[in-house]
Amino acid sequence: MAGLFEKHRVTLDKAIEVAAARTYWSAYPEAPSGKIYGETAKADAEAAFIAMRGKPFDLGQNAGHTVGQEKSPWGFDLGISYAAPSVAELIERGTAAGKRWACASGDERAGICLEILHRINRQSFLIGNAVMHTTGQGFAMAFQAGGPHAQDRGLEAVAYAVMEMRKVPKAALWEKPQGGGQEPLRLEKSWRIIPRGIGVVVGCATFPTWNGYPGLFASLATGNSVIVKPHPMAILPMAITLRIARAVLVEEGYDADVVQLAPDNLDQPIAKELVTHPAVGIVDFTGSNAFGQWVRENARDKQVYTEEAGVNSIVIDSTSNYKGMCQNIAFSLSLYSGQMCTAPQNIYVPRGGIATDEGHKSLEDVTRGIASAVEKLVSSPERAAGVLGAIQNPATLDRVKAVSAKGKVALASTSYEPPGTSGARTATPAILTADAGNPADDALVSSEQFGPISFIVATNTTSQAIALAAGLARAKGAITAAIYSTSGATIVEAADAFAQAGVNLSCNLTGGIFVNQSAAFSDYHVSGANPAGNASLTDAAFVANRFRVAGLRRPAGG
Amino acid sequence: MAGLFEKHRVTLDKAIEVAAARTYWSAYPEAPSGKIYGETAKADAEAAFIAMRGKPFDLGQNAGHTVGQEKSPWGFDLGISYAAPSVAELIERGTAAGKRWACASGDERAGICLEILHRINRQSFLIGNAVMHTTGQGFAMAFQAGGPHAQDRGLEAVAYAVMEMRKVPKAALWEKPQGGGQEPLRLEKSWRIIPRGIGVVVGCATFPTWNGYPGLFASLATGNSVIVKPHPMAILPMAITLRIARAVLVEEGYDADVVQLAPDNLDQPIAKELVTHPAVGIVDFTGSNAFGQWVRENARDKQVYTEEAGVNSIVIDSTSNYKGMCQNIAFSLSLYSGQMCTAPQNIYVPRGGIATDEGHKSLEDVTRGIASAVEKLVSSPERAAGVLGAIQNPATLDRVKAVSAKGKVALASTSYEPPGTSGARTATPAILTADAGNPADDALVSSEQFGPISFIVATNTTSQAIALAAGLARAKGAITAAIYSTSGATIVEAADAFAQAGVNLSCNLTGGIFVNQSAAFSDYHVSGANPAGNASLTDAAFVANRFRVAGLRRPAGG
Repeated sequence: MAGLFEKHRVTLDKAIEVAAARTYWSAYPEAPSGKIYGETAKADAEAAFIAMRGKPFDLGQNAGHTVGQEKSPWGFDLGISYAAPSVAELIERGTAAGKRWACASGDERAGICLEILHRINRQSFLIGNAVMHTTGQGFAMAFQAGGPHAQDRGLEAVAYAVMEMRKVPKAALWEKPQGGGQEPLRLEKSWRIIPRGIGVVVGCATFPTWNGYPGLFASLATGNSVIVKPHPMAILPMAITLRIARAVLVEEGYDADVVQLAPDNLDQPIAKELVTHPAVGIVDFTGSNAFGQWVRENARDKQVYTEEAGVNSIVIDSTSNYKGMCQNIAFSLSLYSGQMCTAPQNIYVPRGGIATDEGHKSLEDVTRGIASAVEKLVSSPERAAGVLGAIQNPATLDRVKAVSAKGKVALASTSYEPPGTSGARTATPAILTADAGNPADDALVSSEQFGPISFIVATNTTSQAIALAAGLARAKGAITAAIYSTSGATIVEAADAFAQAGVNLSCNLTGGIFVNQSAAFSDYHVSGANPAGNASLTDAAFVANRFRVAGLRRPAGG
Repeated sequence: MAGLFEKHRVTLDKAIEVAAARTYWSAYPEAPSGKIYGETAKADAEAAFIAMRGKPFDLGQNAGHTVGQEKSPWGFDLGISYAAPSVAELIERGTAAGKRWACASGDERAGICLEILHRINRQSFLIGNAVMHTTGQGFAMAFQAGGPHAQDRGLEAVAYAVMEMRKVPKAALWEKPQGGGQEPLRLEKSWRIIPRGIGVVVGCATFPTWNGYPGLFASLATGNSVIVKPHPMAILPMAITLRIARAVLVEEGYDADVVQLAPDNLDQPIAKELVTHPAVGIVDFTGSNAFGQWVRENARDKQVYTEEAGVNSIVIDSTSNYKGMCQNIAFSLSLYSGQMCTAPQNIYVPRGGIATDEGHKSLEDVTRGIASAVEKLVSSPERAAGVLGAIQNPATLDRVKAVSAKGKVALASTSYEPPGTSGARTATPAILTADAGNPADDALVSSEQFGPISFIVATNTTSQAIALAAGLARAKGAITAAIYSTSGATIVEAADAFAQAGVNLSCNLTGGIFVNQSAAFSDYHVSGANPAGNASLTDAAFVANRFRVAGLRRPAGG
């Protein structure tokens, strides 16, 4: 039983060390390279993915009926069916399986979690295919974000869980001195870690593994059995994940049902029944503010961790690298067609223009500069498809049209079928212009317009821009913010305002790092301090309340 | 500013060390001794307390009206009035004062908290008088539990807060290697701790400081301004506490309103308005399950930490110290007349009796044994008053009568005026007998009967007793449990059952430690894993979510 812990101890120790230092580290190589993952890994995974299509997915879960309606945003039905146990069956099995799991030591559970992550990593190409063909991401992004980066986030959660559990000593001798020459009072005390109850992970359609792994591994490592309720359009990545997890659990002598899949169809959703079940102690939710609010209000006797949505902003004050700034912003707007919770939406620019290394640029110059950089990035349809990906939900295309019709279009979105696909849609970024203070514009920019829609918002001053962006973050939530400025005082002003609004701020990004990227072990993804989510991935608060402690004390020697 | 941190660094370091080891330690001497607190401390405090009576209490808070209806359970009105700002005024002042407080470093705030605790400690005799004459505790208990023990709990909260805040590095250089001979990507990152919002501490009438300090100091140390809403009948102990805290804050250059008192009267309660205010980010609540539930349901967008109530049980299986067991239980039943959230209520005994060092004892023997030990303990009215204290709420006396009328009385409660008092009431423990399986009895024993009311519950077997007690803990909550057994297997069975029910278990207590006592730095008071409360005093989860982290990242050297 200690074998897996010893096998992965070096990885775990390093993860714990880096999570404290928050420097760069990754346990799982992000390059989709044959040298790392095996020369045939890519071809094998493609073949394996094709072989999965049109068949039942065998996870060893019995159920009276099956579900499965996944469609690849790249233009075909997956045709995969999944056994769909009822909520009652899932809870009964999870409760039964959880009993032995709760008795394992924290280190033993960590070893098993790390073995699961290790084997998931070996299947990164398969996971990449599954993520690509459920989310619509380009393959490179699906591999990286859905594979190694998600695995790093899972490992980070295990590392925090181990740190928190190690704080609880197994035993202590409590010896209280007594006055008057009396013997001290002596108690032998011992403590055990007890689970909260079943953990439920409710996943999203755009980042099924990256957003799913932290809650899954945090609950698992702290001794809870887990039920994963993936988005009905993105079941496969978590099904593959859980097949690996269940195999490792069984090899280690545990019931496979320590982790279970709870698949459903869009027209018969089970999330509400599942998250409110009395046996559920923990809910991890990624999705819309509307359903996030429902979960927070209705699962209120559970520990609920949410990542919801918000309106992310960029404030442009000045720059010493105008070209780099425009290119960097253009990539952030284009990546996965803005279908990221971290994508910027509002770009605030002073009406009087900005100072740059290329001289003064007017508001119109800046708008054109960013628009041109976007046009250049997406000019080749082949190359563009890899960056933009495909549109996951047709409603996003409708939204692009509707918002474009209401606003002033500086760059129109083009929607087309990516080369070599049939029935898929991709969409280039729409850039609209808006005036701060214009009521119609304010209404548009102050709501999340999910997808490839952004606004250049004209403000009187940079200070007004910062105040508007930070105020919006407080009111509607925001996960990221960026500022471009050559003024130290302005950066301090922005840092204060966005910190008070609970938003992580990126400053003067012009190179290979983008505001929408969040690095495991280093960036606290979501602050938990504004409506974009109530928790951070990952910190101590994300794991410390997933277990409780029960004590036993008795007279020493008694 | 660093002066106070340095002054108290040794104390803080020791607190952090002991909170990890969970061995015995106390920073504040529990003996009400002139040698420790000054030869005139006792007399000075009595004089100071008398001088406070019948006057306005000056805390430097402006308000348009005053409140104050405190009555000493020892038989007189305090006659103290308190300025009572409106909720709007409290929130406005707390928000304004909180801005600078949020910018202090974690260590600086810890130093200030420790100075406050140090000065509170020097006033332990005064606090003891205030606690005695609001709660009805005997002076020795009021001094210890309301003074040094409460101060230890406050220090423990600061220690955990410092541990959690220190996990967040101030800055890091993030350096991601790039392939192909390229320069690594380099980001300078920095993080700051941001408060949740205003912390509100809603106190109880029986342990105003012991239950109030953990939340007060945890929220304060993590950068939140705090509003203390004491129970209308136990304002004075927290008023004295906050007067000290406000003085230290002002000396250190902060606004006194970083901590504020929100006193109210019973007939015009303000807690609901206060805890649901949007500016409030944290609520610490100690009180009834009914109001606890209201808070959990209505302040659901806040971090809510509750200590509510439950039904605590003792299971008697066998003992090697029959006399010690009976005496120990008798003291637990008598201490502060059962007006403790940790007091045992149900004592489960097998119908067939138990094995003891004095031979077999029948169920009736055990009932008589415990009843006799109680009678002996309370036989002298003078001595009894010190243990029993006075009844805090007249409803408790009514409950003793009503429950006694419904049940089978083995030992009747006697209520009398303690010697030397006028108008006060004390009450000796009532012991009733009950049969597990008898519906009327089951109804009586499965509800909390707050006050000096306990039941000897006859069960078929010890296993049944354990199952009933643990089941009740799961259903209704429990903070403590005890078992007496000479069988290792039975202790393991009980340890498993009570751990699964989230109850701390004391085993074979026969000496100077009692099931109702919970030691700072060592015992996790309340597990948070059953309806008796959703949090533990104190662990990482109690503090980790009282602050959030905001990050700033920029290209290195940029």
